[in-house]
Amino acid sequence: MNRRRRIYEGKAKILYEGPEPGTLVQYFKDDATAGNGAKHEVIDGKGVLNNRISEFIFSRLNTLGIPTHFIRRINMREQLIKEVEIIPLEVVVRNVAAGSLVKRLGLEPGTQLPRSIIEFYYKDDALGDPMVSEEHVTAFGWATPQELDDIMALAIRVNDFLTGLFMGVGIQLVDFKIECGRLYEGDLMRIVLADEISPDNCRLWDIKTRNKLDKDRFREDLGGLVDAYREVAQRLGILTETDNALATGPRLVQ
Amino acid sequence: MNRRRRIYEGKAKILYEGPEPGTLVQYFKDDATAGNGAKHEVIDGKGVLNNRISEFIFSRLNTLGIPTHFIRRINMREQLIKEVEIIPLEVVVRNVAAGSLVKRLGLEPGTQLPRSIIEFYYKDDALGDPMVSEEHVTAFGWATPQELDDIMALAIRVNDFLTGLFMGVGIQLVDFKIECGRLYEGDLMRIVLADEISPDNCRLWDIKTRNKLDKDRFREDLGGLVDAYREVAQRLGILTETDNALATGPRLVQ
Repeated sequence: MNRRRRIYEGKAKILYEGPEPGTLVQYFKDDATAGNGAKHEVIDGKGVLNNRISEFIFSRLNTLGIPTHFIRRINMREQLIKEVEIIPLEVVVRNVAAGSLVKRLGLEPGTQLPRSIIEFYYKDDALGDPMVSEEHVTAFGWATPQELDDIMALAIRVNDFLTGLFMGVGIQLVDFKIECGRLYEGDLMRIVLADEISPDNCRLWDIKTRNKLDKDRFREDLGGLVDAYREVAQRLGILTETDNALATGPRLVQ
Repeated sequence: MNRRRRIYEGKAKILYEGPEPGTLVQYFKDDATAGNGAKHEVIDGKGVLNNRISEFIFSRLNTLGIPTHFIRRINMREQLIKEVEIIPLEVVVRNVAAGSLVKRLGLEPGTQLPRSIIEFYYKDDALGDPMVSEEHVTAFGWATPQELDDIMALAIRVNDFLTGLFMGVGIQLVDFKIECGRLYEGDLMRIVLADEISPDNCRLWDIKTRNKLDKDRFREDLGGLVDAYREVAQRLGILTETDNALATGPRLVQ
């Protein structure tokens, strides 16, 4: 690996300067964190799987005409992405009650919501990523009303696609988190999907067994996180069954 | 007082059956609570002052064409109001950072907000009145998108009026909480202001001294709550200065 300038290091990924202006390299770490970093573990192979799963999803979203920052996967742990100006919001789309919504509104976990609900959390570790409303977002200028409309429209399209994708492989998409950014191209600016989509930021329940195939396995100390992520990758056709059967670590189709 | 059917008892008020169908009697108690009822005290005279201050504000809002449930004051502690279907939201309008917003977003108390911000809290004591967004409100059907628009428009009008009213008497309107209801008149339904507006649900800071003239005196154990409320009433012309100077309890202009 060349010596590259590190632009940003988050809990699960590192961004490096890319090979050309306007590009970055997104590196997937094996670190798992929960509770705003209170819980931390290194889980061998997680980054490799997330890189592949996120590549799979982002490239299909691009094909669908849902704009993303993704250009191409470089190697086992890295993707080439377009540099965007990240909007400091975690955008959560919920289809089924789980996680913090259950506590906030006293719902039974697993309850189908009356419709998909979009939530915003202000990205600030020191404040614990507080939930905010559209009013806060626009009043403090984190996004304009037009940008917020674009973000919500994008979030709904991603939810539609992912719900179908996972349903097709026997998995219920309970909820997921995305981040968006401003992509500047000449005089044009548009909102694109950034970050990653992987079992780190989705809740994925096996439709038959109700098994959790996502980071809740780590949050709730259920164990078997890499096995669950590998199961997701295999069902999506990213890992062949042979690879999976032989795997001691995550063995991936090239 | 006649024996009347009690319809609802809240922390600071009781609603009784009214003299005619479609009316209720709103009774102002002296109880002060904070922290979702964790802190509780009976403060002699508070209910009488709030009845008068809320009467003053609601009657002027009615005159301005901002629809409210208020008909007329009956006596020292009671108002005649129209029966409405309460929307289970506390609608908070903030002009200056204070209270929970300070903690949520790490702001300096007293900071002027970039613009007025409307927040919604789901009225549920067991859940601690959690903050919710427009998405939750419409998804769970607590209000329709059209009703939410009406509520927000109404909240902004109330904020405009109250900001001016209090500014005129040397008081800064930091924030306030309102509740709205559905008023059915024949085939028509419209959103009207319900509940009360008093120093119990406003933050009111003296512009010169920065003294708090509201329920934060109770929340923060500053003492002098009734004196502060009486000061607000006096400045609004509800109490004459003579009344005030002589007052041992709240002596009110009839």
